[in-house]
Amino acid sequence: MPPRVTSPTAHPPRGDARGALLGAALSLVRRQGWAATSVDQLCKAAGVTKGAFFHHFASKEALGVAAARHWDAVTSPLFASAPYHRHEDPLDRVFGYLDFRASIAVGPLEDFTCFVGTAVQETFASSDAIRAACDDTIRAHAAHLERDLLAAMERHPPCAEVTAAGLAVYTQTVIQGGFVLSKAHGSNAPLLDALSHLKRYLSFLFQQPTDKETNRVERPR
Amino acid sequence: MPPRVTSPTAHPPRGDARGALLGAALSLVRRQGWAATSVDQLCKAAGVTKGAFFHHFASKEALGVAAARHWDAVTSPLFASAPYHRHEDPLDRVFGYLDFRASIAVGPLEDFTCFVGTAVQETFASSDAIRAACDDTIRAHAAHLERDLLAAMERHPPCAEVTAAGLAVYTQTVIQGGFVLSKAHGSNAPLLDALSHLKRYLSFLFQQPTDKETNRVERPR
Repeated sequence: MPPRVTSPTAHPPRGDARGALLGAALSLVRRQGWAATSVDQLCKAAGVTKGAFFHHFASKEALGVAAARHWDAVTSPLFASAPYHRHEDPLDRVFGYLDFRASIAVGPLEDFTCFVGTAVQETFASSDAIRAACDDTIRAHAAHLERDLLAAMERHPPCAEVTAAGLAVYTQTVIQGGFVLSKAHGSNAPLLDALSHLKRYLSFLFQQPTDKETNRVERPR
Repeated sequence: MPPRVTSPTAHPPRGDARGALLGAALSLVRRQGWAATSVDQLCKAAGVTKGAFFHHFASKEALGVAAARHWDAVTSPLFASAPYHRHEDPLDRVFGYLDFRASIAVGPLEDFTCFVGTAVQETFASSDAIRAACDDTIRAHAAHLERDLLAAMERHPPCAEVTAAGLAVYTQTVIQGGFVLSKAHGSNAPLLDALSHLKRYLSFLFQQPTDKETNRVERPR
């Protein structure tokens, strides 16, 4: 079983109303979106009073900003502890990241899709604070991969003019699109297919054998 | 100026309450999402009474299903009349489609992002009818490109095992992800960058010169 990104917030410390509300926001928004999630629902799911909500957050928008940052805090350890970091070759780590993304795309869609990608779809025009916090979280995640991409480009010069930063953002674009198409299709298949296409693109760019991409990171070392 | 997909519904025939409501749904949902858009707002934007709404639609969900189909009806002529169809080589039409997508990604984000991609993010778990209608609309759009991709594969055999259907869905995945990242970033840059990466991937697959992709469809014939 892959780690579940909901688990770190499922059992916040007793009395941690703020943590419980942020955990409830991640769960509810990933299932039903931002606008459909009311302060009342958040309080009920978190088991706290409305007074506690407004003690910790000045508004629902303030909770949204904090939840976008919390999403980064919750998911970062999941990726930091993932097995792909063990690979010595940075390009193996890049392919390993994409294989890891595929491996955790199991179970109900709301368990593996993205809080910030969902929230920003609805809020980009109404809350610049939530939009910016979502952007920060996506870019912080991309920055982790950017480091491996930069090292991979040094060891395996790509055959076209790309930047590590641009490629890192593109991986997130493909993954977010995979979430949208997977929700439409009602299965994880579009995301998995998209990750295969993305791996093939990187194989071309880094002049690696294609259609055997998973062998690259699974081979004995 | 590129054609605006809002224009066909901006001035429905006098007395066309149904058309006005569907047009209002496309505009409002693309700006603020599905749940944030109330029946009252839809009626106000369409200039119709609530009685007229429930004369035409049994529920907000029924309007959502009809709006997903209406999105297909509104956008299909835009793409059908686009200049890229003039290219004799089907691969030029595929690259031309992606260039056309880039060319219409201008102005406010809510004017060029996608009704069904936005609506399905929020509704996939709560309304299977809306989810299925959104999926149908995405797949109907992909099917147009699939025909050109199939013909392109026959004329320019790709260097890896791909299917036209799979590639067509992947293009929509990249575009939907580009919308999400563009909303987060507050500009069309992530979508345009993603389209460039996608074109480079297709250049590799179809063994075309890379980093000169736009020349391919712009060259004199």
